[in-house]
Amino acid sequence: MADLFDSSDSQRGAFELPYAKSETFPGEFTLKRGGSLRDVTVVYETYGELNQERDNVILLSHALTGDSHVARHNMDDNPGWWDILIGPGKSIDTNRYYVICTNNLGSCRGTTGPTSVNPETGKPYGASFPEVTMEDNVKLQKMLMDALGIDKILAVVGGSVGGMMCLIWATWYPEMVKGAITIATSPCLTSQAIAFDVVGRNAITSDPHFYGGDYYGKPEGPSVGLALARMLGHITYLSRESMIRKFDVETDRCNARQIETQFETEFAVGSYLAHQGSKFNERFDANSYITLTNACDFMDFGDNVPEIAENLAPAQCKWLVMCFSSDWLLPPYQSEQIVDALISKKKAVSFVNIQSDAGHDAFLLPLQLSTYGGLMEHFLNNLYLSQESVKKREKDANVVLDLHETPYKPSDSGLIQDGFGRSHDGRLDFESILELIPQHASVLDLGCGNGDLLKRLRQRSDKSRLMGIELSQRCIQKCVARGLDVVQKDINEGLKAFHDRQFEYVVLSCTMQTIKEVEHVLEEMLRVGRFAIVSFPNSAYLPWRTRLYKDGRMPKIGCDTEKSWYNTKDVRFLTLADFHEFCELKGYSVRRQIALDTINGCRVYQNPNDNASMAIVELSR
Amino acid sequence: MADLFDSSDSQRGAFELPYAKSETFPGEFTLKRGGSLRDVTVVYETYGELNQERDNVILLSHALTGDSHVARHNMDDNPGWWDILIGPGKSIDTNRYYVICTNNLGSCRGTTGPTSVNPETGKPYGASFPEVTMEDNVKLQKMLMDALGIDKILAVVGGSVGGMMCLIWATWYPEMVKGAITIATSPCLTSQAIAFDVVGRNAITSDPHFYGGDYYGKPEGPSVGLALARMLGHITYLSRESMIRKFDVETDRCNARQIETQFETEFAVGSYLAHQGSKFNERFDANSYITLTNACDFMDFGDNVPEIAENLAPAQCKWLVMCFSSDWLLPPYQSEQIVDALISKKKAVSFVNIQSDAGHDAFLLPLQLSTYGGLMEHFLNNLYLSQESVKKREKDANVVLDLHETPYKPSDSGLIQDGFGRSHDGRLDFESILELIPQHASVLDLGCGNGDLLKRLRQRSDKSRLMGIELSQRCIQKCVARGLDVVQKDINEGLKAFHDRQFEYVVLSCTMQTIKEVEHVLEEMLRVGRFAIVSFPNSAYLPWRTRLYKDGRMPKIGCDTEKSWYNTKDVRFLTLADFHEFCELKGYSVRRQIALDTINGCRVYQNPNDNASMAIVELSR
Repeated sequence: MADLFDSSDSQRGAFELPYAKSETFPGEFTLKRGGSLRDVTVVYETYGELNQERDNVILLSHALTGDSHVARHNMDDNPGWWDILIGPGKSIDTNRYYVICTNNLGSCRGTTGPTSVNPETGKPYGASFPEVTMEDNVKLQKMLMDALGIDKILAVVGGSVGGMMCLIWATWYPEMVKGAITIATSPCLTSQAIAFDVVGRNAITSDPHFYGGDYYGKPEGPSVGLALARMLGHITYLSRESMIRKFDVETDRCNARQIETQFETEFAVGSYLAHQGSKFNERFDANSYITLTNACDFMDFGDNVPEIAENLAPAQCKWLVMCFSSDWLLPPYQSEQIVDALISKKKAVSFVNIQSDAGHDAFLLPLQLSTYGGLMEHFLNNLYLSQESVKKREKDANVVLDLHETPYKPSDSGLIQDGFGRSHDGRLDFESILELIPQHASVLDLGCGNGDLLKRLRQRSDKSRLMGIELSQRCIQKCVARGLDVVQKDINEGLKAFHDRQFEYVVLSCTMQTIKEVEHVLEEMLRVGRFAIVSFPNSAYLPWRTRLYKDGRMPKIGCDTEKSWYNTKDVRFLTLADFHEFCELKGYSVRRQIALDTINGCRVYQNPNDNASMAIVELSR
Repeated sequence: MADLFDSSDSQRGAFELPYAKSETFPGEFTLKRGGSLRDVTVVYETYGELNQERDNVILLSHALTGDSHVARHNMDDNPGWWDILIGPGKSIDTNRYYVICTNNLGSCRGTTGPTSVNPETGKPYGASFPEVTMEDNVKLQKMLMDALGIDKILAVVGGSVGGMMCLIWATWYPEMVKGAITIATSPCLTSQAIAFDVVGRNAITSDPHFYGGDYYGKPEGPSVGLALARMLGHITYLSRESMIRKFDVETDRCNARQIETQFETEFAVGSYLAHQGSKFNERFDANSYITLTNACDFMDFGDNVPEIAENLAPAQCKWLVMCFSSDWLLPPYQSEQIVDALISKKKAVSFVNIQSDAGHDAFLLPLQLSTYGGLMEHFLNNLYLSQESVKKREKDANVVLDLHETPYKPSDSGLIQDGFGRSHDGRLDFESILELIPQHASVLDLGCGNGDLLKRLRQRSDKSRLMGIELSQRCIQKCVARGLDVVQKDINEGLKAFHDRQFEYVVLSCTMQTIKEVEHVLEEMLRVGRFAIVSFPNSAYLPWRTRLYKDGRMPKIGCDTEKSWYNTKDVRFLTLADFHEFCELKGYSVRRQIALDTINGCRVYQNPNDNASMAIVELSR
């Protein structure tokens, strides 16, 4: 500890960051939880070039103990904490975007914090440093943007704690922010997550060398307490699975690394933690750790969907929310709460819970980069192109870009074949569904796949509110690449995030036969939509029923004609007549119906229960 | 700390336990990890009466910081740590069983530990106390059993760490142990669980008042380190869900209790942890905590199924393995590893992963008592009655009890109705399946429900090896009550725990149509069994197919005639002819087939694909 504070300069962190810039704001900076700071300094780094319109800005916020050095500035520079994601040609492409990453208040990495000199006393703040919050950080970032003459932000981006700041940005300055990307974040820590912070802080404050926070200049600081807090933190950043891989599979659990440490090194995991704990003392300050963890713990953007929704109400940007399935510190359900809150406020949002066993740390690792980086890249690309298109339109009202199909990089794997064995572009059922939906109607597409139907709806009208729900991560990636808003959900579990009558149309296209909870899903569709459109194969189609009757063999029913009774995705088999009876039973009105013979590629006008292989039915209550 | 060690008696713990008995074994007690102890004392408590045959013994082992006081001895006594489970008329009924609970080595609750006086020095062991293991505890328990003249144990029972000792008991002394019950245990801690212990121990050993473990008699001990370790432990005993309930829903997260403590009380969870940490110092010793957590961490019964299986190979007892779905410290997959290991060694085992959101602590809480207590009660009852029956048989060869149906307490809710709308006792398909299976054949029943088929097989032969797999917790409870061995598994995921040809017959009775992974499950059945028997409804049954053909409406096919296309459990629809084609395609031989008209309650001998509503098919490869 001592070596960090022997220097007369208290912002030692800044000197380790040769490309760091800083901005100091003279005067008083009042804080949310009371108290204030004088002459606050914010340290930041920038990447890429600010364009002429000053509208290619991406504002990054770091996680708990991060800093402004998010990526290397050149090949000789040290790698940054998100080097895999940010740089020329990378997912956040600094050839196109101007990236700004600031260091948070209370940190010991340059921005004013406990190690900074208090101008009123001429000594480091130490224990007297006030409590700061995520809101204070956003306020300071805004002051920096003003100082830099930036009044438009293409996207605020943040992982973990950094994501909390995105929530605040989007709602405090809605007119400035065009997009928000959060990854592995939380609107409000769980009591479990707070509990780990509490134990960590207790370890620091109970260290006899903490001296109530006034340990600067003393021969010894609370390095033991800080190391214990860091060890504990480290456990929470990993997952059980990643620890098994790291300490049981790749090494022998009992085989500890030989390291110099005062801590126990009995097991492989023990020596790892001892190393992490000891190493942390070289770059971090205990008062800062207390300040920063408290700032997370104070974050209270709501711990339930209605509360979060109220807080998110002012936001006007598009959202990309991502989390990781094995993150147990800021668990996926909290990102889902954010998504549900956005849905309930009719915001444009895409969401994926990325399958990963790497725990909370996954957002910093290359393992799932192709997924989260790819999603970011496409999301940003669509934001950027839509902005360019608006500009172009303003210049030349006659030329309109097709925003959502403009290729940025050829990372798509080509058109997906559907169950009909031919590309979606030839699908009779989509044409029928499009016929039923008025041009500018709002539409929610359940099980939207790659977004083929939504894309057509978008082509017809770029004004209509469109949204998709899909389970497959790969499909959602494709949808996001197309600029569509699609969230990952299991439709069997219903549409509880949505309000009554939130959409004019809710579509379930060639999907009803694959879901078990038919009754629940249809009820939900007619709650959320004024109208529901359902398409499904008709088991009574004469060639099919004749096959069973004459040969005693199950026909291959439906879209998936390659599959047999034992491997089809379909689990519900019904006839058009059954469906009518069902609607009667449930009190649904059949408004319109289009019957198709998809085998012969034509419409059916007579005896649809006999002659149609597929029916498209529009319902209302 | 000081007050605990001011007394000249170092085994202060024992005096708080007025009903505790002790046994001291003069001489050397050698330890697994090297070193030895002299004149070891074991403290224990007993409940109920040892019967004349000395064969009603239940040996209990406690969790990490527990002691011998498992239940109250009378109404004036303090409640024990498993009072809800143990006592007259309770799940472990002390009117019938003789319960012995010992205190573990290294504890500070009576049995020899770091606070005990080392006879060689006349001073407490303190830091010089050697490393002990679960194996050492079992060795000491065995010495106690010998001293008490007990050579038969009806069941060894243990939760958490106590369960580890059951694993060792069953395999070290197979001839003594008739049953083993483990609950929320592990064969080998995960690196995540060890990591928490490591941080806890580091907190203790880094406490400046630890003095390398020689703090006895000093004015201050490592109470801060011990409190930190306990706080951390407490987080791991709860679950995220139970913490949300406790700290966010039932109280305000920011509303801390006002308690006297040196620790942070910023949040509700903070004051709770501070209280737990401080309180723990009143009853526990830091050296003991280090010794006991190390003993857990050293437990290495294998971290993969083959290794665990090798270790479990000598066991001869029946097993009841239970865990809790939200336990993330000793997670369910580890109990499943134990179960899979037992299965692979052809041991008799029942298993339930009990749905609970209470985390690891669930095994001590009343919340799921009716499930885990009920399962224990029935399991013990069947062990006891089978022993009584053997004795009776030995006395009087002519009278044989029906063990598995003898009612102990009327806690069953009566016969469950099956999908036919009548009790299983009248089921034609079971009669047919029984006809296909030779009397003493070994049988694995997939989706065994309440065990109706297994019960009949058991009634025909009490020698055959029978086992069931079932998903429903309620059904498994019923099976365990009937003395059947049933493990909770999803059959869609296959039978990977089982060896090739482990059973003569694997049965899938009226279940195939409800599972999606038909191909995989049938492959597995014919790997694990010499023969497979599959029964399923035949969609080609003439009344059904005619309904579709003539009326264009889906018939109500199968067992579940109350249900319609939109709410039936069935997801696979096939005809008998389809199934024959499928078998040909897969290279399965149809050995025998019984066709039934379940609607008219008769067998079908002609044109089964037309006339049978259900087929029972015996396959081999």
